[in-house]
Amino acid sequence: MKPVNIGIVGLGTVGGGALNLLRDNAAELSRRTGRDIRVSHVGVRRDRPELNLNDIRISRDSFAVVQDPAVDIVVEVIGGTTTAREIVLQAIANGKHVVTANKALLAEHGNEIFAAAEEKGVYVAFEAAVAGGVPIIKVLREGLAANRIDWLAGIINGTGNFILTEMRDKGRDFDDVLAEAQALGYAEADPTFDVEGIDAAHKLTILASLAFGMPLQFAKAYTEGITQLTREDVSYAEELGFRIKHLGIARRTPAGIELRVHPTLIPADRLIANVNGVKNAVLVQADAVGPTLYYGAGAGAGPTASAVVADIVDVVRALTAESAPNVPHLAFMPQAIADTPILSMEAVVTAYYLRLQALDKPGVLADVTRILSSHDISIEAIIQKPSRDNGDSVPVILLTKPVLEREMNRAIAELEALSDIAGAVTRIRMETLA
Amino acid sequence: MKPVNIGIVGLGTVGGGALNLLRDNAAELSRRTGRDIRVSHVGVRRDRPELNLNDIRISRDSFAVVQDPAVDIVVEVIGGTTTAREIVLQAIANGKHVVTANKALLAEHGNEIFAAAEEKGVYVAFEAAVAGGVPIIKVLREGLAANRIDWLAGIINGTGNFILTEMRDKGRDFDDVLAEAQALGYAEADPTFDVEGIDAAHKLTILASLAFGMPLQFAKAYTEGITQLTREDVSYAEELGFRIKHLGIARRTPAGIELRVHPTLIPADRLIANVNGVKNAVLVQADAVGPTLYYGAGAGAGPTASAVVADIVDVVRALTAESAPNVPHLAFMPQAIADTPILSMEAVVTAYYLRLQALDKPGVLADVTRILSSHDISIEAIIQKPSRDNGDSVPVILLTKPVLEREMNRAIAELEALSDIAGAVTRIRMETLA
Repeated sequence: MKPVNIGIVGLGTVGGGALNLLRDNAAELSRRTGRDIRVSHVGVRRDRPELNLNDIRISRDSFAVVQDPAVDIVVEVIGGTTTAREIVLQAIANGKHVVTANKALLAEHGNEIFAAAEEKGVYVAFEAAVAGGVPIIKVLREGLAANRIDWLAGIINGTGNFILTEMRDKGRDFDDVLAEAQALGYAEADPTFDVEGIDAAHKLTILASLAFGMPLQFAKAYTEGITQLTREDVSYAEELGFRIKHLGIARRTPAGIELRVHPTLIPADRLIANVNGVKNAVLVQADAVGPTLYYGAGAGAGPTASAVVADIVDVVRALTAESAPNVPHLAFMPQAIADTPILSMEAVVTAYYLRLQALDKPGVLADVTRILSSHDISIEAIIQKPSRDNGDSVPVILLTKPVLEREMNRAIAELEALSDIAGAVTRIRMETLA
Repeated sequence: MKPVNIGIVGLGTVGGGALNLLRDNAAELSRRTGRDIRVSHVGVRRDRPELNLNDIRISRDSFAVVQDPAVDIVVEVIGGTTTAREIVLQAIANGKHVVTANKALLAEHGNEIFAAAEEKGVYVAFEAAVAGGVPIIKVLREGLAANRIDWLAGIINGTGNFILTEMRDKGRDFDDVLAEAQALGYAEADPTFDVEGIDAAHKLTILASLAFGMPLQFAKAYTEGITQLTREDVSYAEELGFRIKHLGIARRTPAGIELRVHPTLIPADRLIANVNGVKNAVLVQADAVGPTLYYGAGAGAGPTASAVVADIVDVVRALTAESAPNVPHLAFMPQAIADTPILSMEAVVTAYYLRLQALDKPGVLADVTRILSSHDISIEAIIQKPSRDNGDSVPVILLTKPVLEREMNRAIAELEALSDIAGAVTRIRMETLA
């Protein structure tokens, strides 16, 4: 059969990685698909002599790739949500299948893109958009298709997990580790997307739609970063038997879907609590299979290219069978996508870790426990530390039982109004993930 | 569109679980596939009033199910390799798609079965055959399709992992835990398949074919069980920073494929070393993505039914797209399956844990180290324990660097011939899994 022609738009880390992987494993890929797969056209803004593009058509204008009648599958890896959106929509309009690694694009414009793809009968494949080379999209859409999914929780930003791992292992401060992560290339010069949880929220938005069969609703995701975490909190959590991880959590409740990204205490003996460094992992709780976990590299040229090329293999196998797309983009049939409400954060129930600075005098703890009790908040554990600097305030750490976030907000406001409590109350949510 | 009719042959734990899951999640499954999926015919030897089979055709003769023109997909869950083989081959001959959970059948007769299926253009799906509800078949065949797979290592027998976990956590003896596992229903009355590694070897045979694109070659798998493990070895391993797991390992080497099931020391901080109880996990090392791990329940009605029904969803989606099967059964196109040699165990290189009982007198350690050295075996660590019962022999534990198994066999023969060494030398292989 004739070779399948790939057009790649963008030759950065991911695009270059995909190009190299398609070349390096060409024989293996042909064994897997029965077809030769070759890159025939790339859209790239500057010369890339190190990539040896001699046998490939090169365009400075990315749109030339999606207009090329010879191209069967367009790989969009330029990133961003403006030009990328136009390129993907034009590729679809031209009847081309699309493979993309662009989580921001899908989280924000995925509903439009998938509707266009279904209209034209083409694939838009996006395994690389979440958790790098870990095939979590395929797992949710196909592997766990027998299940009603209850919830999922993921470490889906490697930069954040690297920072938290270093803070715990070496007792380092956030700013210090962030600077190192930037030097190592794990974090961008502007780290906002990673450390503020926006990248994780993009990915969580995609996972939640696949899990529950609902439209992509990035704007409704609650997003809290890790910039406010201190090494003291990491250490107190450890002392209490917990690890702090930056989790994306999506959970089905009778009232609606929880969709939230925030630092989270989890029991230290959970497998996902032991996922360290830049690695990603997603824990899925489903009704028939129970808990399953998927772990691996969430970023980098090789892992992301692994997912991009796996998508290409899927499309090529389907093209070769001359079938229309048979796996719905969002795991459920388009007409079965339900507009399930996303809960506001105030309506979410979790347990809490609280840290407050209390004046070291009688009655303070009584005030604290009275306020919590008046909001029906039960205390699970309490640590009161001697003052480190012989000052007049001491840290008090409390673990609570699960409580409605709205009640906790009110309790914290009252706590902060106490004259014997110095500064703001630190709060970190807790999940048992069981 | 008209409903898809499922015939189930065998209504034991897995068959009953699949029946219930298809009913419980019927709405969700219809949302995922756009079709109604219903069980129309079951083959079952005795009455099962608790399953409420009123709306289903019931046959005592299993072959009636595969002859039924109304049945689109046959689910074979009777187990065994004789009647099951005939049922699967007849279903294929009748143009029906097959879903099976039968690892023994596939490991021993898979080449014949897949050839028949390709001839007739039908699917034989078998996600439930390995690691229960963890979609490891789909991961190897599709999710990691971009990669050349270097090796994989799996905890793929829950019974064995339960026993090893209890031995470590509670310092219990093998026989003691096995009896409890039987009482809990984790182990069969005849536990041979589980504790001697045969079940794991069946599963490893399947994983290895998917990873490397070679025919199923169960007869060439090296299989060693866990019946000889003592709690002392588990405890010494712990002291040295290792856990003992019963692993199935398949590795690509220049000389051929390693295919082996045996107790294995692995560093205690590896994620897979922390997979406990009846859970399964498979660690896959692939060239582009690096290491990824897949974890979950490896057995039980729900998890196995999850995999069976996921396979049904795959087939229904493909039927609905009116395509021929587009994912090759063994991950690579049938004409690309290569008859890669499987290495004999003597040709495998691993590090070793050795335990020997040495008479407590001068010169014994010198003899031991001289013999190891004469076979070019380097010692990584050594523990000599004081005698526990004030007897005249003491345990000596050695960790070696990697060595050819043939050399180790010779060295052990010489060690056992020493008059100052009492009894047999215990040896357990070690892997860093990195």
